[in-house]
Amino acid sequence: MAPSSRIELITIGDELLLGFTADTNAAYLSRELADIGFEVVQRTTVGDSGPAITAAVRAALDRTGAVITTGGLGPTADDVSKPAIAEVFGRAMRFEPAILSAIEERWRARGLQGPLPAPNRRQAFIPEGARVLSNRHGSAPGIWLEDERGRWVAMLPGVPREMRGLMSDEVLPALRARAGANGPVVRSRTLRTTGIAESALAELLGELGATVNGLPLAYLPGADGVDLRLTSRGLGPADADKALELGAEQLRERVAPWMYGDGTTSLAEVVLDLCRVRRLRVAVGESCTGGLFGARLTAVPGSSDVFVGGVIAYDNAVKMNLLGVSADELAAAGAVSEPVARQMAEGARFRAGAELGVGITGIAGPGGGTADKPVGTTWIALAGAGDTQTKRSVFFGDREEIRWRATQAAFEMIRRAVAR
Amino acid sequence: MAPSSRIELITIGDELLLGFTADTNAAYLSRELADIGFEVVQRTTVGDSGPAITAAVRAALDRTGAVITTGGLGPTADDVSKPAIAEVFGRAMRFEPAILSAIEERWRARGLQGPLPAPNRRQAFIPEGARVLSNRHGSAPGIWLEDERGRWVAMLPGVPREMRGLMSDEVLPALRARAGANGPVVRSRTLRTTGIAESALAELLGELGATVNGLPLAYLPGADGVDLRLTSRGLGPADADKALELGAEQLRERVAPWMYGDGTTSLAEVVLDLCRVRRLRVAVGESCTGGLFGARLTAVPGSSDVFVGGVIAYDNAVKMNLLGVSADELAAAGAVSEPVARQMAEGARFRAGAELGVGITGIAGPGGGTADKPVGTTWIALAGAGDTQTKRSVFFGDREEIRWRATQAAFEMIRRAVAR
Repeated sequence: MAPSSRIELITIGDELLLGFTADTNAAYLSRELADIGFEVVQRTTVGDSGPAITAAVRAALDRTGAVITTGGLGPTADDVSKPAIAEVFGRAMRFEPAILSAIEERWRARGLQGPLPAPNRRQAFIPEGARVLSNRHGSAPGIWLEDERGRWVAMLPGVPREMRGLMSDEVLPALRARAGANGPVVRSRTLRTTGIAESALAELLGELGATVNGLPLAYLPGADGVDLRLTSRGLGPADADKALELGAEQLRERVAPWMYGDGTTSLAEVVLDLCRVRRLRVAVGESCTGGLFGARLTAVPGSSDVFVGGVIAYDNAVKMNLLGVSADELAAAGAVSEPVARQMAEGARFRAGAELGVGITGIAGPGGGTADKPVGTTWIALAGAGDTQTKRSVFFGDREEIRWRATQAAFEMIRRAVAR
Repeated sequence: MAPSSRIELITIGDELLLGFTADTNAAYLSRELADIGFEVVQRTTVGDSGPAITAAVRAALDRTGAVITTGGLGPTADDVSKPAIAEVFGRAMRFEPAILSAIEERWRARGLQGPLPAPNRRQAFIPEGARVLSNRHGSAPGIWLEDERGRWVAMLPGVPREMRGLMSDEVLPALRARAGANGPVVRSRTLRTTGIAESALAELLGELGATVNGLPLAYLPGADGVDLRLTSRGLGPADADKALELGAEQLRERVAPWMYGDGTTSLAEVVLDLCRVRRLRVAVGESCTGGLFGARLTAVPGSSDVFVGGVIAYDNAVKMNLLGVSADELAAAGAVSEPVARQMAEGARFRAGAELGVGITGIAGPGGGTADKPVGTTWIALAGAGDTQTKRSVFFGDREEIRWRATQAAFEMIRRAVAR
């Protein structure tokens, strides 16, 4: 990769150093920059201290000549980035009337009374020779500062929404122009699988090895399942996309039965789309998940044409009264059992009036496990017009993970039944 | 603060620089260190590159003489931290038989077959003169390296669970001993409020100003409500705790009606505890929240003695059939209305068999809003033995935030009714 594509990030703020605020800007910037061929080679976080900012920016510029900073541009007294970075370039601060007008206009547009407070006026000072990056999303403009040797610093606000707006409006277009259209990029493709363990996937993909079509393959296990990620580094955009597509195709052939989507698609979205096309509505009776199945489906806008609702049957009396589970089965097999899951699914389907009914009953822990039914044991049932299928699983993890995995497995049961 | 309490963090890993993995270790380490009086003054992230690690550790040591690193200790080929940091101290790597024995034992204990792979053997090499920090939570031991001038680096694994284990087992006790029992610490106290806007809180607390009992006060608004955080810096542990307690008391007097807890207590936990003591069980009928009310309550272990369950009445037919909402009211007032919320709460209470019934119906967006009932409009009802209260709110934010705020408001309605 050409030296000019190396870049450093400096995130500024006492809150970040104290650990009260998670540094979400850094991860976002890294991904966006990689996608257009800029590799973040080092990231530094410093507090709201002028000398620390000056030293960090100077050191980063010496290494790469290209730096993006976030934070320290607001009107409060601790926002000291601009003069600290001006010092690195040996530039004075000067008053920029156009910025003040923009800030005053914004002030009036928001209906705020009285004269502009002095701290807001300070935002109109920028380093000599700087270019203003106009901020449609907030009051603090960004700053682009560059020296005669082409070394540059882009200063962005720390508020994530404003930072992202300025990146896409101003910084990414400028960097794309610098990188050229065919420079090397870092791009990824992710295939999402569920219901298969990481080790089983590795066995299935064994002959492909750690690289697929020359691209390194990463296994990313989580409560949703295992994501498979291919990453291309060093190729131009078109070649990268082609290599990723071919690599993904090789993976897809082998993992198709367990794959439900790619990128950041959620299984809830996939299930809703499949059911919508087939005009199937879904009802649920949930015990151990306590509403999480419904909460996940209804987090997706437009879910109401597929999901009708159902019953949270946490207490056994609710299982009996609202889902028609029989007292005899509850006594004989216990609440976490195949017949109870079946009756919950069938009861939800019938009583809530849907084509498909789901029943989920399990032991989420941390207590309640036995030798026969350890923590994580879950029965899931899916009732359709003709038949009801059931499945027993033992999910691992803590209470939240077990509950999440149970809803994911229920979604997957629907996906497999409906996609056939 | 004494210079010896300044510390730097270096987090190591290509994944962090690519932005695929959020750097949760850094925030955790900052908080733990602040609590015992170590102030993180700079944080650096570098990739799995020996020269970059060497340069970053050298620069950090020059600034503070005290460095904690995470990552780069595993058996894979990119784990290069140990030799890179040994180089900073001018130390050679040497083989440590005791580490190899521990790794082999762990290998056998896990029932793994065959000889130990070569990469795992490499973990038994450590820098000359290093102290091993034994890792009960994984295979990679931590390393403490110190020179004759007292400058030190603690190397921890990148896996969060292992890193946290080594911090509490080894590093924090060592640092506590260094800091002494009465050195200055950075400590915080958080009071959690809900149902009152940040601006209203600020007005209420106006006379106290930006500091309370000499401690800076931060307003932290979120979907749970507004948290109020006091932070003490520069005092010893006992004085800090006393100042925080007095400051918190001054805040509490003013915000008591809206305050539901402190620290990281959730409102769901508070409601469950209150109802448990008063032997009140809760049932729910939820529409726009789609199960989230139940999911949040049942995320708390032991919730089953309070929460019995209820109905997810997403579709109007379910509201009628399973909760007894009248078709006339639905037609006359609409699904998002006071009478429907009231009937949902009363229906849930009666049909699921509980002392308290909650009804939630609203417009979560992004579509579905009208001039009369904009997105965010929500009716919440709470039915008890004698009467049913109702409340209309218009929550702001995106779909997820509106749904979360609606469940939080429902919890708060229970808390206020029960705490009386």
